[in-house]
Amino acid sequence: MPNSARVREILSWYSSDNVGVRTNIARMLNQGRLAGTGRLVILPIDQGWEHGPARSFSKNAAAYDPRYHFELAIESGCSAYAAPLGALEVAAADFAGEMPLILKVNHNNSLFNEPSADQAVTATVDDALRLGCVGIGFTIYPGSAFAQAQFEEIRAISAEAKSKGLAVIIWSYPRGPQISTAGETGIDVVSYAAHIAAQLGAHMIKVKPPTAHLEQDAAKKAYAGRPIETLSDRVRDVVESCFAGRRIVIFSGGATKGTAEVLEECRQIAAGGSFGSIMGRNAFQRSKAEGVQLLRDVMDIYADAAKG
Amino acid sequence: MPNSARVREILSWYSSDNVGVRTNIARMLNQGRLAGTGRLVILPIDQGWEHGPARSFSKNAAAYDPRYHFELAIESGCSAYAAPLGALEVAAADFAGEMPLILKVNHNNSLFNEPSADQAVTATVDDALRLGCVGIGFTIYPGSAFAQAQFEEIRAISAEAKSKGLAVIIWSYPRGPQISTAGETGIDVVSYAAHIAAQLGAHMIKVKPPTAHLEQDAAKKAYAGRPIETLSDRVRDVVESCFAGRRIVIFSGGATKGTAEVLEECRQIAAGGSFGSIMGRNAFQRSKAEGVQLLRDVMDIYADAAKG
Amino acid sequence: MPNSARVREILSWYSSDNVGVRTNIARMLNQGRLAGTGRLVILPIDQGWEHGPARSFSKNAAAYDPRYHFELAIESGCSAYAAPLGALEVAAADFAGEMPLILKVNHNNSLFNEPSADQAVTATVDDALRLGCVGIGFTIYPGSAFAQAQFEEIRAISAEAKSKGLAVIIWSYPRGPQISTAGETGIDVVSYAAHIAAQLGAHMIKVKPPTAHLEQDAAKKAYAGRPIETLSDRVRDVVESCFAGRRIVIFSGGATKGTAEVLEECRQIAAGGSFGSIMGRNAFQRSKAEGVQLLRDVMDIYADAAKG
Amino acid sequence: MPNSARVREILSWYSSDNVGVRTNIARMLNQGRLAGTGRLVILPIDQGWEHGPARSFSKNAAAYDPRYHFELAIESGCSAYAAPLGALEVAAADFAGEMPLILKVNHNNSLFNEPSADQAVTATVDDALRLGCVGIGFTIYPGSAFAQAQFEEIRAISAEAKSKGLAVIIWSYPRGPQISTAGETGIDVVSYAAHIAAQLGAHMIKVKPPTAHLEQDAAKKAYAGRPIETLSDRVRDVVESCFAGRRIVIFSGGATKGTAEVLEECRQIAAGGSFGSIMGRNAFQRSKAEGVQLLRDVMDIYADAAKG
Amino acid sequence: MPNSARVREILSWYSSDNVGVRTNIARMLNQGRLAGTGRLVILPIDQGWEHGPARSFSKNAAAYDPRYHFELAIESGCSAYAAPLGALEVAAADFAGEMPLILKVNHNNSLFNEPSADQAVTATVDDALRLGCVGIGFTIYPGSAFAQAQFEEIRAISAEAKSKGLAVIIWSYPRGPQISTAGETGIDVVSYAAHIAAQLGAHMIKVKPPTAHLEQDAAKKAYAGRPIETLSDRVRDVVESCFAGRRIVIFSGGATKGTAEVLEECRQIAAGGSFGSIMGRNAFQRSKAEGVQLLRDVMDIYADAAKG
Repeated sequence: MPNSARVREILSWYSSDNVGVRTNIARMLNQGRLAGTGRLVILPIDQGWEHGPARSFSKNAAAYDPRYHFELAIESGCSAYAAPLGALEVAAADFAGEMPLILKVNHNNSLFNEPSADQAVTATVDDALRLGCVGIGFTIYPGSAFAQAQFEEIRAISAEAKSKGLAVIIWSYPRGPQISTAGETGIDVVSYAAHIAAQLGAHMIKVKPPTAHLEQDAAKKAYAGRPIETLSDRVRDVVESCFAGRRIVIFSGGATKGTAEVLEECRQIAAGGSFGSIMGRNAFQRSKAEGVQLLRDVMDIYADAAKG
Repeated sequence: MPNSARVREILSWYSSDNVGVRTNIARMLNQGRLAGTGRLVILPIDQGWEHGPARSFSKNAAAYDPRYHFELAIESGCSAYAAPLGALEVAAADFAGEMPLILKVNHNNSLFNEPSADQAVTATVDDALRLGCVGIGFTIYPGSAFAQAQFEEIRAISAEAKSKGLAVIIWSYPRGPQISTAGETGIDVVSYAAHIAAQLGAHMIKVKPPTAHLEQDAAKKAYAGRPIETLSDRVRDVVESCFAGRRIVIFSGGATKGTAEVLEECRQIAAGGSFGSIMGRNAFQRSKAEGVQLLRDVMDIYADAAKG
Repeated sequence: MPNSARVREILSWYSSDNVGVRTNIARMLNQGRLAGTGRLVILPIDQGWEHGPARSFSKNAAAYDPRYHFELAIESGCSAYAAPLGALEVAAADFAGEMPLILKVNHNNSLFNEPSADQAVTATVDDALRLGCVGIGFTIYPGSAFAQAQFEEIRAISAEAKSKGLAVIIWSYPRGPQISTAGETGIDVVSYAAHIAAQLGAHMIKVKPPTAHLEQDAAKKAYAGRPIETLSDRVRDVVESCFAGRRIVIFSGGATKGTAEVLEECRQIAAGGSFGSIMGRNAFQRSKAEGVQLLRDVMDIYADAAKG
Repeated sequence: MPNSARVREILSWYSSDNVGVRTNIARMLNQGRLAGTGRLVILPIDQGWEHGPARSFSKNAAAYDPRYHFELAIESGCSAYAAPLGALEVAAADFAGEMPLILKVNHNNSLFNEPSADQAVTATVDDALRLGCVGIGFTIYPGSAFAQAQFEEIRAISAEAKSKGLAVIIWSYPRGPQISTAGETGIDVVSYAAHIAAQLGAHMIKVKPPTAHLEQDAAKKAYAGRPIETLSDRVRDVVESCFAGRRIVIFSGGATKGTAEVLEECRQIAAGGSFGSIMGRNAFQRSKAEGVQLLRDVMDIYADAAKG
Repeated sequence: MPNSARVREILSWYSSDNVGVRTNIARMLNQGRLAGTGRLVILPIDQGWEHGPARSFSKNAAAYDPRYHFELAIESGCSAYAAPLGALEVAAADFAGEMPLILKVNHNNSLFNEPSADQAVTATVDDALRLGCVGIGFTIYPGSAFAQAQFEEIRAISAEAKSKGLAVIIWSYPRGPQISTAGETGIDVVSYAAHIAAQLGAHMIKVKPPTAHLEQDAAKKAYAGRPIETLSDRVRDVVESCFAGRRIVIFSGGATKGTAEVLEECRQIAAGGSFGSIMGRNAFQRSKAEGVQLLRDVMDIYADAAKG
């Protein structure tokens, strides 16, 4: 489809990237229910790896099958589906060309989650190409002892991905010995972590919805005159922290919640200028009908925001 | 979009290819006016290189600009647009993601057209990736003194393209010291040339519409009981020669003709079971309104044929 | 032999792999007593490396000779035989083509078994090719401090193996500072470890028969409504955890046991939907007649289960 | 299956090859109706490329589809099926593991058949591995101006194939400015060409049935006391020329013939000690029932000969 | 300096190139007397190589010293200076950063100028980088027997140059057995040769001023209704032939002429929409004062044309 004016505007921010990268970003922006609005809802399913299959899928046993994930993404009209290597290998051929795919190339798990747990790089740019993906996904832990090593890993992977025309999406999850649990979602830390992802060269950045907590003393002063009371305020701060909004920033849904709560959160996120949501557990830990409906409702919130 | 039953059937023929290849074939089959029908109309514009710019574009000066080619392909609803490196470099960024692109990687020209003229390989698989293409195009001259060298060139390029998830389209144009001018489009020679392209591992094959001429003595006997009177008969023979129809075969429009003549030829080609047409000069050597209308009319012929 | 309907169904799950991989999986599924049933019994003999030769072979001194292992696998009708580099080098030429071979490419030993003991990678994909193997085997220790490094090792080896047409079999043995001894075979941990192997891109996954123990607090809730009382229940949970049964999962026999005990365990494993067993010590630490008989009895259990 | 005494004897001739090569030779020797006899019948179908599709397939239109070739080989119980890249790509996944496959990696065609026509190398060892093949096939023209270059090509391809465990089969077709048409099948020339293939390191050698014609003056004297009257005599000479029978030598069927003629020729070839036949046109240019019957009858001749 | 609106417009045509390429194009567009106008005058001095030093430099012996070339370019306010490897090596360090440099990477000479004379590639992209150049220059001879090989050479060099951020300038000089001497500068041939350079991916194209001669019969018809009477008309045709003016096209001055003649020619070229001139012999085969004055006068003509 022809790119809308808004899609063209977004693509103009990636003018130092080759046409292949811009093509793959456009593929996500032109897919599904939000096509052309400049907003995205992405379905990410790597929770089996992160938390174990039972914790992830026993609530809705159909979700043990990666084909279900494809169906959920396609039927609801998602912009993209992100998953680990194995899940894409087992199901992607059955849905060739139907959904923009993001290969998540590093992972962690809950069988060993000491502070010394790093992510493992478990897939490559060549895997992404042979599986027909539009991009690769990579998680960083800014603040952890591994962060610098991770930054060097994504530097290498990102350079290769970009040269081959693939989009680079960074999941930025701050943590570490100098960050409190509250601090991991504190607005100063989240905006900082998003900014680092942007500086690493990410085309798209994914963070958790930030709280009003301020973790770093030095930051408290900086935020003195800056509105962070509402989630919308804080989302605005995060988006602005990513090159004044010239990078696509999306927010995760986090742990399973009630429908009303999810939608209200999305409304506030959308009002703050988010480019969209990335929503896993809240989508696949319900019946398919409910999951599809929830994703569509979320998309409609962003569609409305895009009109607004 | 979800793949139609026919698209799924076609994709099943490429079961030894990786998902990336199948994804890019699906992108063409799901694009534009013929999306989902299993038929394609492709706009190829390399005539400036082959015959010179004035002979190609002076009839419709707007076509000097490669952006016009994109507009023509997009507005008419083509399945893909094929062009040389320079034309894609100058215009592709302006239409990122709007049209499946095929990078033609070898070329000939009319400034030196002795029998000893081979094609030059002028672009690479990496160019195709950085320009966001779905595939690469390559011309072979079966029967020429260069054919064997060309076969070895496409073997190397094709292996790299397939491993990176790109589709491989071969233009097969027989010619050479043992082939008469009439023989270049004779049914026995065209079907033979198409078969060679299929055996080289092409995902899609492009040939000229064959005539009832039989070039090779040995072939005359083989065609004794085989219907080749009508163009539909001959198209059927070509398609069958490509693994009993399990490869996508499309036919060129050839030199500029009147509208009625073009459409009648397409009707016969469609009736013979062609997967579509690849049509350049007849499309861009008219006003845009006429070119768009002609392409749409051609697509409608294939859409009708697809309905059966 | 022509693939049975069930074998064709299983091969269809590997649609993103090349034909070489599917061919080698088919070779195992069409070998021996269980040929065509979609079930497998594999003979793995690396216990000499893992526990020392005397502990492994003194009970049945004939088993000191790797040719004995081939004979045992061939005479009983196993689906494949898995062994380290040296054992294959010394005996494989004598039985060329008689038995599908899996080259185990990493190993551990008991001369140094502190918690810091990692597996060493001791063979390569090229070794597997020169020895005529159908696949490579690799052990991971999810939960250990080495797991992330192991995941990166198998990522590289697996990518090379798959590109050369070899099957990838992962032995997934959870262990580590946060996993109790009981937890190593607890159902939550085993299913989690199997899922990680599947996500790493394994074609076949080997785990130990799980107990009803639940190790992780967070998992207890997830298993609340999920039957795990019987071994069959638990096997079903493991198989479902591997992409809803769309990956081949087989179970080890574990420590030496009495015949009746072994067979009863296999019956339950088979009833739970396992694709088969991988059985070493119980097979070679008996006389050959007994070992062959036991393996055949185990196969017959799976053959019966396959009939349904 | 366990190797028969004769298969073990044959494999012993390849003791300097790695186990992978011997495994793949064993796979052919243990396949189909002649399994275990030490004899082979191979179905080769590259005539579409060599002579054009109509000349090859119009007599039996079902043979336009490469899946038909697989069915013919499987249903008749052939030892292997040899084909070009494209034919294997389009059909191999549907028959994964059912038939040992030989990828023919160089080809010629009849659109340009001057004396200056060389074969083109159109596929690679990596192609053979990704398609699950047991070996690669290569044609040489001893006596031609290209022969030395071809020998260097097969040296490189063969070295790579052998290191990856693939069998190397050489089609040896003498021709050239100093060889008369009669000489191309003259016994001195055929035995010479077979010997060159053996010296190039071929595991299996394919030649045409030789006539009693003696082409080279120098050879006439050498053959003075050597029986070459009957086809059996001459086959014996060819086999002896290949390291006293310690290489597998098989004979082609040549142009289409009547059934009785084909069978009688095979009987004489078998009586001369041939390891088997490679038979294309006579098999696929009939109805499937007739083709299957003919192939089985040929196999039975070799099975009888093997019994001695 | 900030880019002017016109410079920004020109840079927008290179939207598929990386920022490095655009930066180097901008350096030329923002250099010297024509900075910001979107026009360029380039000083190219490779005549010593092409015609010998005496023929080139004896008229103005100061020009034997490459430092003179730098001074001429700098003092007159040229946009760039193009030269062979040796000339840049001997003088570039003395003027580091003062003048955008183009390394001419292939050359021909007059000691051997048979029709079979090809250009030799005498420098590399790495040379251009170590010498601080903004781009590389390459000559093609469309129509010659070497053209296809040259196209493959520039494909490789251009890909490397572009990836390193260097601009690619192609000198396109048609010649060959099917082109008459008049034809080498005939408008149909020059426009064709310029178009080929553009399709090869050149950022800038240099051709000779075309005459009204029409060389190819087929082109005569195409030019029927197209104005080519004046040099301005013909320049317009060439510029349009390079993607409707979306590539920088400049014209050479050719053989030495009188000042008035040179300036009049430039006026007509400028009126036709040329982006500038590339002028060697007319500049350095005079005294420095005269050469500087001539170059400035030429620049003023383009500056006036740019004002429109």
